[in-house]
Amino acid sequence: MPYRDEQLTEEKVFKDPVHRYIHVRDRVIWDLVGTAEFQRLRRVKQLGTTNLTFHGAEHSRFNHSLGVYEIVRRILENFRDQPEWDPSERLVCLCAALLHDLGHGPFSHSFEKVFDLDHEEFTRAIILGDTEVNAVLRRVDEGFPQDVADVINKTYANKLVVSLISSQIDADRMDYLQRDAYFTGVSYGYFDMERILRVMRPLEDQLVIKESGMHAVEDYIMSRYQMYWQVYFHPVTRSAEVILTKILHRAMHLYHSEKYQFSLKPLHFESFFNKEISVEDYLKLDENIVYYYFQIWQEEEDEILANLCRRFVNRDLFKYIEFDPGNRYRELIELKEAFAEAGIDPTYYLEVDSSSDLPYDFYRPGEEEERLPIHLLFPNGELKELSRLSDIVEAISGKKRTDHKLYFPKDLIEQLPEESQAKKRILEILRG
Amino acid sequence: MPYRDEQLTEEKVFKDPVHRYIHVRDRVIWDLVGTAEFQRLRRVKQLGTTNLTFHGAEHSRFNHSLGVYEIVRRILENFRDQPEWDPSERLVCLCAALLHDLGHGPFSHSFEKVFDLDHEEFTRAIILGDTEVNAVLRRVDEGFPQDVADVINKTYANKLVVSLISSQIDADRMDYLQRDAYFTGVSYGYFDMERILRVMRPLEDQLVIKESGMHAVEDYIMSRYQMYWQVYFHPVTRSAEVILTKILHRAMHLYHSEKYQFSLKPLHFESFFNKEISVEDYLKLDENIVYYYFQIWQEEEDEILANLCRRFVNRDLFKYIEFDPGNRYRELIELKEAFAEAGIDPTYYLEVDSSSDLPYDFYRPGEEEERLPIHLLFPNGELKELSRLSDIVEAISGKKRTDHKLYFPKDLIEQLPEESQAKKRILEILRG
Amino acid sequence: MPYRDEQLTEEKVFKDPVHRYIHVRDRVIWDLVGTAEFQRLRRVKQLGTTNLTFHGAEHSRFNHSLGVYEIVRRILENFRDQPEWDPSERLVCLCAALLHDLGHGPFSHSFEKVFDLDHEEFTRAIILGDTEVNAVLRRVDEGFPQDVADVINKTYANKLVVSLISSQIDADRMDYLQRDAYFTGVSYGYFDMERILRVMRPLEDQLVIKESGMHAVEDYIMSRYQMYWQVYFHPVTRSAEVILTKILHRAMHLYHSEKYQFSLKPLHFESFFNKEISVEDYLKLDENIVYYYFQIWQEEEDEILANLCRRFVNRDLFKYIEFDPGNRYRELIELKEAFAEAGIDPTYYLEVDSSSDLPYDFYRPGEEEERLPIHLLFPNGELKELSRLSDIVEAISGKKRTDHKLYFPKDLIEQLPEESQAKKRILEILRG
Amino acid sequence: MPYRDEQLTEEKVFKDPVHRYIHVRDRVIWDLVGTAEFQRLRRVKQLGTTNLTFHGAEHSRFNHSLGVYEIVRRILENFRDQPEWDPSERLVCLCAALLHDLGHGPFSHSFEKVFDLDHEEFTRAIILGDTEVNAVLRRVDEGFPQDVADVINKTYANKLVVSLISSQIDADRMDYLQRDAYFTGVSYGYFDMERILRVMRPLEDQLVIKESGMHAVEDYIMSRYQMYWQVYFHPVTRSAEVILTKILHRAMHLYHSEKYQFSLKPLHFESFFNKEISVEDYLKLDENIVYYYFQIWQEEEDEILANLCRRFVNRDLFKYIEFDPGNRYRELIELKEAFAEAGIDPTYYLEVDSSSDLPYDFYRPGEEEERLPIHLLFPNGELKELSRLSDIVEAISGKKRTDHKLYFPKDLIEQLPEESQAKKRILEILRG
Repeated sequence: MPYRDEQLTEEKVFKDPVHRYIHVRDRVIWDLVGTAEFQRLRRVKQLGTTNLTFHGAEHSRFNHSLGVYEIVRRILENFRDQPEWDPSERLVCLCAALLHDLGHGPFSHSFEKVFDLDHEEFTRAIILGDTEVNAVLRRVDEGFPQDVADVINKTYANKLVVSLISSQIDADRMDYLQRDAYFTGVSYGYFDMERILRVMRPLEDQLVIKESGMHAVEDYIMSRYQMYWQVYFHPVTRSAEVILTKILHRAMHLYHSEKYQFSLKPLHFESFFNKEISVEDYLKLDENIVYYYFQIWQEEEDEILANLCRRFVNRDLFKYIEFDPGNRYRELIELKEAFAEAGIDPTYYLEVDSSSDLPYDFYRPGEEEERLPIHLLFPNGELKELSRLSDIVEAISGKKRTDHKLYFPKDLIEQLPEESQAKKRILEILRG
Repeated sequence: MPYRDEQLTEEKVFKDPVHRYIHVRDRVIWDLVGTAEFQRLRRVKQLGTTNLTFHGAEHSRFNHSLGVYEIVRRILENFRDQPEWDPSERLVCLCAALLHDLGHGPFSHSFEKVFDLDHEEFTRAIILGDTEVNAVLRRVDEGFPQDVADVINKTYANKLVVSLISSQIDADRMDYLQRDAYFTGVSYGYFDMERILRVMRPLEDQLVIKESGMHAVEDYIMSRYQMYWQVYFHPVTRSAEVILTKILHRAMHLYHSEKYQFSLKPLHFESFFNKEISVEDYLKLDENIVYYYFQIWQEEEDEILANLCRRFVNRDLFKYIEFDPGNRYRELIELKEAFAEAGIDPTYYLEVDSSSDLPYDFYRPGEEEERLPIHLLFPNGELKELSRLSDIVEAISGKKRTDHKLYFPKDLIEQLPEESQAKKRILEILRG
Repeated sequence: MPYRDEQLTEEKVFKDPVHRYIHVRDRVIWDLVGTAEFQRLRRVKQLGTTNLTFHGAEHSRFNHSLGVYEIVRRILENFRDQPEWDPSERLVCLCAALLHDLGHGPFSHSFEKVFDLDHEEFTRAIILGDTEVNAVLRRVDEGFPQDVADVINKTYANKLVVSLISSQIDADRMDYLQRDAYFTGVSYGYFDMERILRVMRPLEDQLVIKESGMHAVEDYIMSRYQMYWQVYFHPVTRSAEVILTKILHRAMHLYHSEKYQFSLKPLHFESFFNKEISVEDYLKLDENIVYYYFQIWQEEEDEILANLCRRFVNRDLFKYIEFDPGNRYRELIELKEAFAEAGIDPTYYLEVDSSSDLPYDFYRPGEEEERLPIHLLFPNGELKELSRLSDIVEAISGKKRTDHKLYFPKDLIEQLPEESQAKKRILEILRG
Repeated sequence: MPYRDEQLTEEKVFKDPVHRYIHVRDRVIWDLVGTAEFQRLRRVKQLGTTNLTFHGAEHSRFNHSLGVYEIVRRILENFRDQPEWDPSERLVCLCAALLHDLGHGPFSHSFEKVFDLDHEEFTRAIILGDTEVNAVLRRVDEGFPQDVADVINKTYANKLVVSLISSQIDADRMDYLQRDAYFTGVSYGYFDMERILRVMRPLEDQLVIKESGMHAVEDYIMSRYQMYWQVYFHPVTRSAEVILTKILHRAMHLYHSEKYQFSLKPLHFESFFNKEISVEDYLKLDENIVYYYFQIWQEEEDEILANLCRRFVNRDLFKYIEFDPGNRYRELIELKEAFAEAGIDPTYYLEVDSSSDLPYDFYRPGEEEERLPIHLLFPNGELKELSRLSDIVEAISGKKRTDHKLYFPKDLIEQLPEESQAKKRILEILRG
């Protein structure tokens, strides 16, 4: 039997708190799970610094990747009898689902921002490079790694396959909403996935939803909206991310400044600081490594680096206030000046962070990052875009909501001498 | 107001997936949570290597410690109107509950075994030493750190207080059973805690259970029994622990052998290898640090250390068979010889691991590690020991069940040349 | 001790699937639960005919009434330390919560419509009349029954008390959404009630929500919206209600027509048919009694009554299509004519049923049925109306959504002879 | 296509709180659900009088029957690839699962006891008689009704088919444990059914369990044990059953006594009282009908009947004490005498009720009601009986636990005059 079709003699399962069991029959999937690159995802948290806000959120990307695979597996089981579905696409779907986050590094969001990375590029590079994952995929077929990469890259010819993994109601989102809700313990994030899977239909190049499932999809969109504002954009989490970003900036700055001597040299970071990162270097840097450096750097000579690391490691975060830099630009400048005057370097101790979410959008050709709309399928074969039928989806559709917060170390400000003019000015502005 | 009685201006909560919310009103508790030593528990997994078997089990001891605190807080709320309860013991109970696991290091079980440690000693040392935790406790009262340590140490005068944290139906066990069930996703581990809390009564120096709650307690004992065999003693988890133990032994061996030069020196382990561990050194070693070394050591020159580290990091574990060394002692010796002959060092590649659990025991004076029985309280004031009333508890009471497994690297054996006599002998014995 | 303050020697609990336990300490509450009028609520389903659509929905109003009581009890426990809360109002709140649905008869919605009843009037009449409930309440104080009735009637002086039981975020709604979701098994209907209770504050004459709880309230409003469209207005349920209504109309018609002789006289319905209903008669009619008649009437001589009863008892319901009588008024008339021509009495076999919901509304003075808005309380003491802060609430706020369906017996139409002109015309119109 | 194989054009689902969805594809199943006899199960509660103890337990046998069908459906889906499974047995399995409780009447347990009925006989009679169910089954094949009846009757040739519906780990038990736990709200009753289904294998004439699933089965047996003692044998439920039994006895007694004239004649009960029950009569008596009589009979002239009915309808139950009639036989006689002397008829107001359960049993040939043991299947093909491997199952295996309680109307005794000698004697004996 060709490797592509090889089945395990007995189905294997992973116990999963969200989907109960994750089922594996294909030898290819089993082998992929066993690769070093996939196992590495155990050492990257799904939600980065969120565990500092919601202590249950320690789950890894390994967790989530298996979950996305399982959802796609169930969708395809439902599709077996659908004439519009081409069963020969099954394996590429399952592999792409499993591997779609393979390129995520530690604290992806912050690392991507500071070092100008794109985790999707690394996903491709790992799939196509000299890796165990690549070796497994090549056993299927010489071109198979490229196929999998194309699906993840959204350039695969069969757009229906792409939309299983990346669309506004894809397996990726369905897994993370439920999983992140489960591990944080919040009551949002749940929706009737079983129903959505039952009403999903392949139709030409897209996944559509039978109209009878409209309310289940509405509920899913609302879950997404709630999770964004309640969990993903939580200001305490963002405060930790601000500090993380500042640590990376400071370490890079020190690395490039000739005179500073690290007690612990940032070996694992060098290629990042030099912006020449090989796949091999990239794979070596997981969250344990990052934490190792931060823990040691708590005692670095550079007081800013040491202080920021102590804050991150011991969860001694920055405080925040609402602050829209659009309206309060002048105050922001004054604040920076007052910080500098008080001896608190504003480059590292003051940050405006903005979050914004577009919970659902319909197609707006020509715009950056076009999003495929969700279409409802009527018994007569007609398709209608979701927001035309749902008031509540219409209400949030295409509306970007933004939230700005200013982060600062309240303790340092309070420690300034009472008579300090800078302190007074700072407190005045912060009070608003 | 004295620090002991100080309340937060507004109650704080932590969202918790198991108890929904964890409520904090006392300033002392809030301050303890903020200490570096307590925050460190975020970097120690509650279940060590179990996440290699149950991928959801990534939760930390920080999680669990808050949970135990919350259960004790709820018990004491129920006790408010009980004449046998002395309300002045409240704060010491809450602090002991929160801090009872403070001395846990990374992969406690394995570290304790290899280095002859006792995490309870470290808990005491951290509470009584020069730490942030100690400073907070001392603000309550000079003798307060000692009181908290005594409760955890089970030497506190008021045994009722002790039994909240350590007895056969204490807050510690009630939290971890539910929490570990939640994060692993297994359906065992649940029981009606709310009912147990409602029927718990303080009575002289022990916690007793109103007889009407007997079945809830039975169910709790059964949950414990199931969790031990289904989760805590899972052979895949134990396989990972075997490898971990071997890594520590090998690194210690190399450290003490004069000629070996580590590419990455085991700085963080030195005091462990020399068995002279200060609290400061101990606190520095968390699971991130351990992982850091193991990841780097994958490329050490010593092939055994490198191979074991690669196995641990990439979850390439030992296989196992049932093997009772009591009956098969001679075969075990032969196996070691055959391993040695085949060039696979049996010291690092062969291990019999035995697990055993005593799910419930009544009092047997004079035995090592006496366990306080669970008493049921009848309306007429009479007390009866649980196993006298419950058939199923009686069935497992005092019965130690032991399970022996032999762990070995199947891949290395399979790679031996076909004609190898040692290989044949090994396979023969393993087949049983 | 006055009866008002009397406590049970030991707290009693009811096991409840939704709130886990319902706790009773007050003798008055315990005695009320034991009255015949309250026990009668066991024989009235919470959701009428919904169990014909969702088979789990067999729960009674007894269930729900205990649940509302429990929620109010928890709210008041949180209010203990709130200076704006008057603790002497506690008992009237608990009693009103428990008894707020006391006047519900069988299949309330349909009965109220057909017989022009108002269950709230009956609630008052039972509380103030010669009943066991009244006797218990009078033991508290001569005027106490009136106080309880006033709270339920929304005429009680202290509007804060009223708003616990009837407002847009009251204990009634919070219970039924969760309870109906639990018993139907739908995934909508859940929200974080524990959080909402934590952020509720008494403020002068209203319940307000601390601003930090905004998203929990949003989620609650969305749950309500989903439950209305997914459960409460489900067309199959409405079909059963249409038939029920028709049975009542037909039986009343036959009762008033002089010549018809019932085999089973509608004794229990007589006062309803004559629209002179005493409290005593009202209390005697529960769902078992109604079912008894319908079962026997399956064999009445009158074919329409018998047929409708058979349909109801055996769940042989009417089919439906979307049909807006505003646009299709002429067709509706034609349809009636064709039905009559075909010998299917349109009075009993054709019905347009419209459902509409106003999920949330802010204050619009002067309008019929004004609804109190939900106010969010900011740290600075400011109050803002919910829909001004929440896009999604704003989207559905004040917007009545209506759904029209036409119900008809498809089987009877299909049995008409092929050549029937009426049949052709009927099918044509139904096809749209 | 033959009716046997006919599929619905689109799968239908029932929303179910326990199994999430119940899936129907077979036309035969869909038609059976629509029959009057199956719909009647909506009017028979699954747990009789248990809702008087656990108010959530209002679920019907309709509920449960669909659940058993769904479990069998899932088992057979897993069996598709098992060579030992004969796929032509599929439909008879599904029909037998759906219809296995068809003959349950109202409050089965009590009715069977009083009138010497056997619900299984009625199940057969309904399946084989002139009913809608029979008509549907006959469309499959003339002999099909008999096949279905044989499976339910355990006389079907293929014992493997029988054991799906009736064995110690059958679909019936798996459904009711979970369902009754869900609706009562107790935390017992859950187990990992998904895992059990995964490890079930057809093997010759029995269902066996792969050894790796041993702990899941243990947990299921424990759930059963807990549900029996916590829910099914709850003394409050049994008190209601005692009263129900007494009502039936009293009404039968009055019916047979020549002089008594009922205000409401027990028409529906006549054939029961005369022990000549036709299927037609049997089907007419559901719980609504029974309640109707009991409600009206609250005002019967016979004071005993009226009093018992008032107690049942208003949940004014008998109290109870532990009382083993084996040891206290003489006291029981004295008690009856004292009751008689005090004018409280002991025939209707005094009852010893005993419950006993045999949670698991292995095969004991020759004993009445032999029970098939649960066998575990080892990788080497060996079978071992469960209790030989599980300590806790062994502990309760074959052990019947019995609980005796004496029920009496405490209020009537208390109302006796203080000076009554009978009263003193009664209280003395009851105090024990």
